[in-house]
Amino acid sequence: MSRMDLRQTIRSVAPCAAEIAAAARQRELTKPCGSLGKLESLAVWMAGRQARAIPEIPSIVAIVYAADHGVAARLVSAYPARVTAQMVATIAAGHAAVSVFARLFGVSLRVVDVGVGADLEPVSTIVHAKLRYGTADLSREAAMTLEEAARALDVGRAEAARTIDEGARLLIAGEVGIGNTTASAALISALLDVDPAQVVGRGSGIDDTTLARKLRVVTTALRRVRRSAISDPMALLANLGGLEIAAMTGTYLESARRGVPVLLDGVISAAAALLAVAITPSCGDWMLAGHLSPEPGHRLALDSLELEPLVDLGMRLGEGTGALLAVPIVRAALAMHAEMRTFEEAGVSKRL
Amino acid sequence: MSRMDLRQTIRSVAPCAAEIAAAARQRELTKPCGSLGKLESLAVWMAGRQARAIPEIPSIVAIVYAADHGVAARLVSAYPARVTAQMVATIAAGHAAVSVFARLFGVSLRVVDVGVGADLEPVSTIVHAKLRYGTADLSREAAMTLEEAARALDVGRAEAARTIDEGARLLIAGEVGIGNTTASAALISALLDVDPAQVVGRGSGIDDTTLARKLRVVTTALRRVRRSAISDPMALLANLGGLEIAAMTGTYLESARRGVPVLLDGVISAAAALLAVAITPSCGDWMLAGHLSPEPGHRLALDSLELEPLVDLGMRLGEGTGALLAVPIVRAALAMHAEMRTFEEAGVSKRL
Repeated sequence: MSRMDLRQTIRSVAPCAAEIAAAARQRELTKPCGSLGKLESLAVWMAGRQARAIPEIPSIVAIVYAADHGVAARLVSAYPARVTAQMVATIAAGHAAVSVFARLFGVSLRVVDVGVGADLEPVSTIVHAKLRYGTADLSREAAMTLEEAARALDVGRAEAARTIDEGARLLIAGEVGIGNTTASAALISALLDVDPAQVVGRGSGIDDTTLARKLRVVTTALRRVRRSAISDPMALLANLGGLEIAAMTGTYLESARRGVPVLLDGVISAAAALLAVAITPSCGDWMLAGHLSPEPGHRLALDSLELEPLVDLGMRLGEGTGALLAVPIVRAALAMHAEMRTFEEAGVSKRL
Repeated sequence: MSRMDLRQTIRSVAPCAAEIAAAARQRELTKPCGSLGKLESLAVWMAGRQARAIPEIPSIVAIVYAADHGVAARLVSAYPARVTAQMVATIAAGHAAVSVFARLFGVSLRVVDVGVGADLEPVSTIVHAKLRYGTADLSREAAMTLEEAARALDVGRAEAARTIDEGARLLIAGEVGIGNTTASAALISALLDVDPAQVVGRGSGIDDTTLARKLRVVTTALRRVRRSAISDPMALLANLGGLEIAAMTGTYLESARRGVPVLLDGVISAAAALLAVAITPSCGDWMLAGHLSPEPGHRLALDSLELEPLVDLGMRLGEGTGALLAVPIVRAALAMHAEMRTFEEAGVSKRL
């Protein structure tokens, strides 16, 4: 597909069925109206997305994108960059947190190397789509070229398309990438035009000295981007982002184009979601927020996306773990809507 | 069992294994320490309760106690009292919210009539343990006698004992009872010695006029109790409580005695938990808070119990639904702890 076609395709977003959502809202189940709180709005939201007054419990797939970040060399993380490759292997072997949660909740999981800084074992449980060995150091130069950003976005679009073709009807995009809360903080600061001091957080659990260094690195990167008057979202992605962030953005865009909802994860996912919305505003109609992490940029991004997280458990691991913890809540909302009886059906008396 | 024996038995609580919890805390899984937030403290908490450094995912049973309230005649609810019996039938038929969530999450469910105001169909899916046809109007007189309160508590203890004997290792007590947020508000106000205006809420969704009436009813009941200088928890339960609240209290006491944790539900469950702790303080060591409801008394009660709810979804239905929504989170915490690899096992590099 040419760049021009890409531009047109990713701007297309499936419409929501507002009338069907309204019909779903009329269903008087045997409980006081509103007494199931967010579950009720969730069921109505999904009715509009599936264009069914009684939406189905969807098949769910989580895709974890992995890539390295040149900025990790600036010592902005509590962990060395080689952990990215090690975590991909741990996920592929089924032993990481995201593997455990996906298994527990019956969610299919795939892990995609879109730019890990080392050669990975050619095992069948890893999708090999490496575009380069990590990004450049975003505090000194553009993390990648525009072409590379577009190709990484395409990896995420293709993964979404394949997963949807195979039957998935709710997608989760997770990530692994030492240094990627630094890239996400830079992206969120630039996209929302807020002071990086309000956005940069402790990521994997850094100390005060490292936090101060991380803030300096993000500030430097933002200054460079501002000097060049860069504001186009694809250019910001190339300058400040990461290959896995680009792939997540692509997954969100393709899902919206195909009319399949996505369940967002943590702060990196939120940065990708902001990019997707900057590229194609109406794709926000297809997003649900899974959880809230303690990263300060996460709340800012969700507020801007006008999304309310479903759970808040102090989780800050990424990988898709926060989104996975919200999966049973989504299922409960849909089961409630489909399986509970109405007052009429159950012969229960209505309000006084 | 004589009353004297009962008094001694319910004061016994199983000890927690603090050393084993400490050992569980030492497990260095392949994630930044603390990055799974509340899931980590939950796994450690459960290790201390099960006395296993790697606690098992427990078999879970939800017991829904149903009873009517004389105070419903004061028009404190949005629904007529006959809805209690109708909801028991709906639960037994598998169509209520608690039925749907229990089925979805693989939790066994039983419903116990401990004092519904009507004769129920003698179906095998309902445990028939009716002690009387609802309580008296607590705004005018004691809701029940001390003897009845003790017998209702015993129903809850016996249900817990039977369920634990059958293999349950985590219990949920839910309830159905039109008028029971009024009784719970009175109990919470009395037990915490707070102004009922801070505790009384909209329950099933009452309007301002009904809310003002509900507050007057609770204030009147509290005045009566205070005039008689009643402060013993069993006497407060008999005066202000309900038969299902007494049964829930008994379930919490027996679970703690047997060393089986309980997952609390909403504001009625919290009132029962406060009573259990007032009777036997250390039984609080066996409690987890499932969710937070918008009922103002719920937060006050959880604060007093020093419990943090796992989810906050604006739910205010009762039945055990809020506790059930927290079940997948408890399971995720335990699966994480048991199935993730340590840094050593996975060959992943530790912190810089």
